[in-house]
Amino acid sequence: MKLYDSRLAPNPRRVRIFMAEKGMTCDTEQLDIVKGENLTDDFLNINPRGILPTLVLDDGTVLDESVAICRYLEEIQPEPKLMGHDPASKAYVEARQRHMEFDGLLPASEAFRNSFPGFAERGLAGTRDTVAAIPDLVGRGTASLARFYEALDAHLGEAPFVAGDEYTIADITALCVVDFASTAARVPVPDSCENLKRWHAEVSARPSAGA
Amino acid sequence: MKLYDSRLAPNPRRVRIFMAEKGMTCDTEQLDIVKGENLTDDFLNINPRGILPTLVLDDGTVLDESVAICRYLEEIQPEPKLMGHDPASKAYVEARQRHMEFDGLLPASEAFRNSFPGFAERGLAGTRDTVAAIPDLVGRGTASLARFYEALDAHLGEAPFVAGDEYTIADITALCVVDFASTAARVPVPDSCENLKRWHAEVSARPSAGA
Repeated sequence: MKLYDSRLAPNPRRVRIFMAEKGMTCDTEQLDIVKGENLTDDFLNINPRGILPTLVLDDGTVLDESVAICRYLEEIQPEPKLMGHDPASKAYVEARQRHMEFDGLLPASEAFRNSFPGFAERGLAGTRDTVAAIPDLVGRGTASLARFYEALDAHLGEAPFVAGDEYTIADITALCVVDFASTAARVPVPDSCENLKRWHAEVSARPSAGA
Repeated sequence: MKLYDSRLAPNPRRVRIFMAEKGMTCDTEQLDIVKGENLTDDFLNINPRGILPTLVLDDGTVLDESVAICRYLEEIQPEPKLMGHDPASKAYVEARQRHMEFDGLLPASEAFRNSFPGFAERGLAGTRDTVAAIPDLVGRGTASLARFYEALDAHLGEAPFVAGDEYTIADITALCVVDFASTAARVPVPDSCENLKRWHAEVSARPSAGA
């Protein structure tokens, strides 16, 4: 299998960390999203949706959603389990993972994408159509991130990890969200979120965080 | 287990159809989202995120994401399989399901939510904070839905269902997206999308579509 990757974007990092936690490696090619290398004819022939990460399996199956790629990796190499153990924990980890996406990654992406000059006419990922940035999404995304940090901090006051007692894919998504929001979207974690800062230091210290 | 449901919204319908395809039933309570019954103290005590559907398991676990709820149901009653059979098909179904969410449900929700007068100050689901609607999202969502319909139509010219040869959760999401986009967001499928119309008629004829 082959992974199309980008060091600049938060979603490919999710897959890199997931693989590192599993101790897996694969053939990888870097694409520069800011230069639009994901929107060339060559890449759109591989993935018409034009987004990264994209994993191409040996049978030709194209997986271009981070969580779907992680699902495949979890299935072919179940240990260490990063997506739950039994019906209830699998569902709960999935719910928490999605909270990190919808409540955190989405507003962080909106806040970044609609303020970054290079994306002024690329308001949505994966299309060659001109899509104007919507400046109002920056303020809305920033306010959503404040709510996200507050809710995650409260959760991490009651549990060591994002989905309870074990490190899971929900922690991976959350780490990528916090780092992306803090740097690219310029919305850092407030000092008052002590539980969140404790967790962030711990998961950032794992070797996988550098993947 | 108990399902908190809303007949008015597209996400709860996804779970109702999934359960109908499995032949499952459970205790259900209806909440009126337009009246804000999902934002009362009583419901926020059950689900602080204030969104529907929400499934509460007998052990108290709260699942408030449609796909996480479906994951639980698939795990406790695997047949008929609606989320894939083996590592590659499970991952591919998940990827296609997410395409329906991110390329279809998200723009449909943006187009609806930012034009519906009752949500003029409730631009985001699940928060009591005042969030102003952003009118520019209506046009952006409408344009995204046009791209979504075109891509889905092309796919359905090559495969009978959204994720290939079998009816899956990806078809359920797509059906709910198309019906919601056509009615609430007022962006119907163009007549030129003949494959999509063929598929829509077929999946709408399944008894589960009325759930």
